[in-house]
Amino acid sequence: MSAQDTTRINLLCRVIRRDIVKATTVAKSGHLSSSLSAVELMATLFFDAHLRYDTKDPLYIGNDRVIFSKGHASPLLYALWRAAGVISEKELLTFRSIESPLEGHPTSRFPFADASTGSLGQGLSIGMGMAMYSQRYLSESFHTYVLLGDSELSEGSNWEAIQSAPYNEVKNLTAIVDVNRLGQRGETMLGYDLENYAQRFSSFGWKTIVLSDGHSLRDISHAYTQARLAAKPVVILAKTVKGKGISFIEDRDGWHGVPLKEDQARRALAEIDAPNEALGTIATPPKNVKFIVRSRKAAFRITVPPRDAAPRSMYGMTANQLFRTTPSLVALDAEVSNSTYAYPIAHTYPDRFFEMFIAEQHMVSMAVGLALRNMHPLVSTFASFLTRAHDQIRMARYNNVAITFIGIHAGVSIGQDGVSQMGLEDLAMMRSIPDAVIFYPSDAVAAQKSHKASKRV
Amino acid sequence: MSAQDTTRINLLCRVIRRDIVKATTVAKSGHLSSSLSAVELMATLFFDAHLRYDTKDPLYIGNDRVIFSKGHASPLLYALWRAAGVISEKELLTFRSIESPLEGHPTSRFPFADASTGSLGQGLSIGMGMAMYSQRYLSESFHTYVLLGDSELSEGSNWEAIQSAPYNEVKNLTAIVDVNRLGQRGETMLGYDLENYAQRFSSFGWKTIVLSDGHSLRDISHAYTQARLAAKPVVILAKTVKGKGISFIEDRDGWHGVPLKEDQARRALAEIDAPNEALGTIATPPKNVKFIVRSRKAAFRITVPPRDAAPRSMYGMTANQLFRTTPSLVALDAEVSNSTYAYPIAHTYPDRFFEMFIAEQHMVSMAVGLALRNMHPLVSTFASFLTRAHDQIRMARYNNVAITFIGIHAGVSIGQDGVSQMGLEDLAMMRSIPDAVIFYPSDAVAAQKSHKASKRV
Repeated sequence: MSAQDTTRINLLCRVIRRDIVKATTVAKSGHLSSSLSAVELMATLFFDAHLRYDTKDPLYIGNDRVIFSKGHASPLLYALWRAAGVISEKELLTFRSIESPLEGHPTSRFPFADASTGSLGQGLSIGMGMAMYSQRYLSESFHTYVLLGDSELSEGSNWEAIQSAPYNEVKNLTAIVDVNRLGQRGETMLGYDLENYAQRFSSFGWKTIVLSDGHSLRDISHAYTQARLAAKPVVILAKTVKGKGISFIEDRDGWHGVPLKEDQARRALAEIDAPNEALGTIATPPKNVKFIVRSRKAAFRITVPPRDAAPRSMYGMTANQLFRTTPSLVALDAEVSNSTYAYPIAHTYPDRFFEMFIAEQHMVSMAVGLALRNMHPLVSTFASFLTRAHDQIRMARYNNVAITFIGIHAGVSIGQDGVSQMGLEDLAMMRSIPDAVIFYPSDAVAAQKSHKASKRV
Repeated sequence: MSAQDTTRINLLCRVIRRDIVKATTVAKSGHLSSSLSAVELMATLFFDAHLRYDTKDPLYIGNDRVIFSKGHASPLLYALWRAAGVISEKELLTFRSIESPLEGHPTSRFPFADASTGSLGQGLSIGMGMAMYSQRYLSESFHTYVLLGDSELSEGSNWEAIQSAPYNEVKNLTAIVDVNRLGQRGETMLGYDLENYAQRFSSFGWKTIVLSDGHSLRDISHAYTQARLAAKPVVILAKTVKGKGISFIEDRDGWHGVPLKEDQARRALAEIDAPNEALGTIATPPKNVKFIVRSRKAAFRITVPPRDAAPRSMYGMTANQLFRTTPSLVALDAEVSNSTYAYPIAHTYPDRFFEMFIAEQHMVSMAVGLALRNMHPLVSTFASFLTRAHDQIRMARYNNVAITFIGIHAGVSIGQDGVSQMGLEDLAMMRSIPDAVIFYPSDAVAAQKSHKASKRV
């Protein structure tokens, strides 16, 4: 990183900090301090030629992807895109107003938010879904960057993603952990023990990069260069200061989700001392990236289910027929493919099947990531265990994506296995998801028709 | 371990294996192979004077506790208690029949099942709840043993418990991982890589004991002795063979949840060659263990809420009044005590408050563990994030315990923070829980009354 680049990005960091202060002060709410700790981490990613993103075309399939798993740092996200020149100051200052696409936590209403977040611990799985999409189905892989808070690492769902990525040999995924030590109401369990975080990630098979100063542009830039070259998933563990850049809130409790009052904002802006205008440039992605999915003839095909066939037995064979003509279909299963009858898909379409092991939360969020990249995931497990991912299913809806959930052993039909295995609560859960279409087939014929119909929902 | 003890427990293992085969063959269903891999692990725990349990009084508060997180190994659980003499052969052979308390997955209908399980990845949190109960509130701590499958370690909820136990300085909790390599449909992610499992647990602060032969009684017994002496939570990682003891199913795919047919059972019983009758003895727990909870005068007390007070603001102060007269009340919060207003409890009753950080699943299952030991937990977070623990809430009901869930920001009231933070689905979720009583207070007065009323539910 040249001295010139350092100066340039330093200026951008000031502009970004100013915009974060302005947006949250005008909105009278929002997560100022949590945004400030990650300014250098994200400004370097965006404006030092690490991120490759066609700012004219956020939907372009060859773009890298950036997910704010710590969705409450949305002021930073919007300030970054403001610095990239895609939104105006006026638009920025609509932050958190009711008609604005710049919501308190990022949603798909803002086209540059690569995922809707806000329930913590889901971004890494979503990012892995995107990373695997690009690794498996694109002529050239893009890179996925996920910004996480240190507090949210306590969500078990993160560890499902952390165990899954190396197992699946994901090579184009970088997690950036903004270790600012402070959660909502006090210190995290590990505080600034970055080495322990590194041990944990490392024991799960990740390459770890520890930044003892998460505000050093040079160190950050070097980390991103290493991350893109690595042959396994990478975590950058960065020691940062919550509220960085505003002396009277730095590293202090009591400032989580608290904006500055107007007089405080004036003091802060004087400290930040940003230039009037400075725009950064984002590197361009490779051109003409292509979507490539192989189609295969299903190994077997039946039209009329045998009499007395279990409804669940229709899944894999019906899906295999659909897969042939619909390249966007993929399937994920939680280590029960011999119960859900997902196994014919694994057999016929191994490159469109994902064995997710017993990790329903990760399975659903990874499906969200795949769906955000235009795939249509079919997600299967016991109906009862879909409740494990209720929060993720809820967030799938707010990501505005099409996913088919296949829950088996609905109702009391599993009998002797007992109530823990019975899908008794799943119907109420799915009915509470806005616009969900629910099929409840009572026999194999209805099940087969349901699978076919669900593709069109 | 004396040669005599080894001979004695070896005989008991044969008896237990025979009973597992008989029960599953008669029931024509059940998890034979998953039970067989852990026979030595559990027989040594029960019958080599490690477990201390008054078999005449399963409710005695000084008993050690045993939780089958891999609840599908219920045939082993029942065979163990059969070998302890508390159920008859006739009772054992009612396994999985509709009136029998010996359900396919253990429930509270069987008094010696210390927790209802069957949805994987919940037992360790339940066990930690029990361990902390005994550490904090009993005159003498008991020890809690949790049997886990290797497959279920992929559930993120386990890692929430794994990070939480050392942080809370739990000293009386032993996890026993039955590493039999095979899940329901094939090999686990780590297979027999016990060292990697150990690295992972170790990086989270656990003492690890690796048993390269999880069927060696001497090694197992030594591990339990070490485990009870350790000053931190202990995991015993035992390499075992799925289907152990029946040559034609050992270490083979395709036998998960599959019982033997009658002719196969005959061959198996001939191989096992168990003596007609052999009973083991379980060590007795210390006598006169006492429940001790300190009560304190609440720091502040109000009767009439101020006009326009937020409903959520009533929680902590009302709870503090209730805590004074009800020693069974405890509170758990998911790192949002300044939003839920749980913080007055943390202040006044630090020994009855549990900071659970952002780990809702663990929070709820730990509450189940506390509730199974006669406490009444109050569990608070955002209503929207209670969905994260839907499966655990469901299982709480099947554990037949009283827990009060306090969900804040119900409905659209949180406004600008956006839909991810709004409790929109929680009502449907809670309504699907049998016998749940739901209060939906619309103001502070109603909230205060609801808190008081919920204590009586």
